[in-house]
Amino acid sequence: MSSEPTHQNIHTFDQATALQPAGPHHWKGQPGRLYWNMVGPFGGTTAATLLHAVLLHPERIGEPAALTVNYAAPLADLPFVLEARPLRTNRSSQHWLLLMTQVDTEGQTITVASGTAVTALRRGTWAGSELPHPPVTPAENLSPRPPTAGLAWSERYDLRLLDGDLPTAWDGAHADDSLTRLWIQDLPPRPIDFLSLAAMSDMFYPRIWRRRALRTPAGTVSMTVYFHADQAALAAAGSGPLLGEARGQEYRHGFFDQRAQLWSADGTIMTTTHQLVYFRD
Amino acid sequence: MSSEPTHQNIHTFDQATALQPAGPHHWKGQPGRLYWNMVGPFGGTTAATLLHAVLLHPERIGEPAALTVNYAAPLADLPFVLEARPLRTNRSSQHWLLLMTQVDTEGQTITVASGTAVTALRRGTWAGSELPHPPVTPAENLSPRPPTAGLAWSERYDLRLLDGDLPTAWDGAHADDSLTRLWIQDLPPRPIDFLSLAAMSDMFYPRIWRRRALRTPAGTVSMTVYFHADQAALAAAGSGPLLGEARGQEYRHGFFDQRAQLWSADGTIMTTTHQLVYFRD
Repeated sequence: MSSEPTHQNIHTFDQATALQPAGPHHWKGQPGRLYWNMVGPFGGTTAATLLHAVLLHPERIGEPAALTVNYAAPLADLPFVLEARPLRTNRSSQHWLLLMTQVDTEGQTITVASGTAVTALRRGTWAGSELPHPPVTPAENLSPRPPTAGLAWSERYDLRLLDGDLPTAWDGAHADDSLTRLWIQDLPPRPIDFLSLAAMSDMFYPRIWRRRALRTPAGTVSMTVYFHADQAALAAAGSGPLLGEARGQEYRHGFFDQRAQLWSADGTIMTTTHQLVYFRD
Repeated sequence: MSSEPTHQNIHTFDQATALQPAGPHHWKGQPGRLYWNMVGPFGGTTAATLLHAVLLHPERIGEPAALTVNYAAPLADLPFVLEARPLRTNRSSQHWLLLMTQVDTEGQTITVASGTAVTALRRGTWAGSELPHPPVTPAENLSPRPPTAGLAWSERYDLRLLDGDLPTAWDGAHADDSLTRLWIQDLPPRPIDFLSLAAMSDMFYPRIWRRRALRTPAGTVSMTVYFHADQAALAAAGSGPLLGEARGQEYRHGFFDQRAQLWSADGTIMTTTHQLVYFRD
């Protein structure tokens, strides 16, 4: 795990989620190729980019509590416009609308992503958990998974698998469950913040690949992230790594859903997340 | 379980989720008191009302796959305007924006709920599940929970508890987990459809009440529902009952999340759902 900063001392993740102001409630940017996946940027960086506009908004109150991102079309590596608009501001919470558009090859403006967010002022209350940190091998005792050739985003993360790695052969050997556990860290390391939590919540490859051992087409349609970390939990998590766990739930008629959660190394839940994924046979 | 229809032969649920056209992409309606909860209508009927506009929209393709509803302010029993706008139409899926407004007592138009939905054409594919139907006592061998005095919505459902009913005493006796299992049916019975699935996905009382045995203020902030049922599964489920299971996940800083799923009596997953809830000590 190198700690050497990249290009111009700006971390690749900050380059990939950068926004420029473009008038009230609007920002502009371009995905770039740093986190490119098969047919577009890694969905996690898109989610982080949408959330970034909320964090930059001058009217924002509070910290992220909920984020839903719907992936309407693959993003091109072309400029986008992002609208982040507060729909409702309560005393201690705020509701946001998120819309990202690009101009397609025919000159049409199309919605490539939409979403909503809730920000909220956090306060001390009773606390509890029903998601205990499983006993696992520490990250330092494991080796990083080699990046996947041709997938830029896989070079941006140090992933250390505990259970449920990608099948070693795409031979259709059916598995009964799709549990994956792994350690996740930015490469090079970067202090965990709400943006990297949003991105890392989308870190789990499609569960159906694990169930079927067939590399069929699959892509996230909608992802929801609930943020349980506050600034103190972010500071305590440092630059990670975080422990992630994901499981598939129901697979039918071209869609399945999977749930996941991220813990800090000291056992604090950072996010819980749920996503709907389309697949083809 | 009476099968006698209510007022004017229109089921109370259809009365509570009724919409009138109000121009392109717009509908109007009024919550009514039939499903009233403590400070507004049952959130499940609000979610169903938002989805109803999608189902009524002349440009819709496909059936509901995902729905996210954010509860921005308590609905008053006053007229609302509901916008349901297709943001993006793909070959086999469509992305929707949902906005509900009311005029408050000061004459201001405020957003009371927002959301997004994805509809999709379903097709036959490989199918699997990691959510097996637990072995439980059939609904007919259990008694319905008596409605809660003063809560109109509790008179609209036949709820038969298997595990994890409301605490019998609000005495602060801490519980380690918040699992609830129950049978759910409209009262009187009504054929299960996407609208009742949306509503029933919000059927689970705040998990923190179970954990703490303290009836502290709590309310859903955001709910996401993934629909796994297609028309054939709806037809097979008939008028129910459905088996529901819910668990809390993480509780901290005034918010917690809970996940849940609904099965038909024959063991088919109808929805999986996840929600963020605010609470006070």
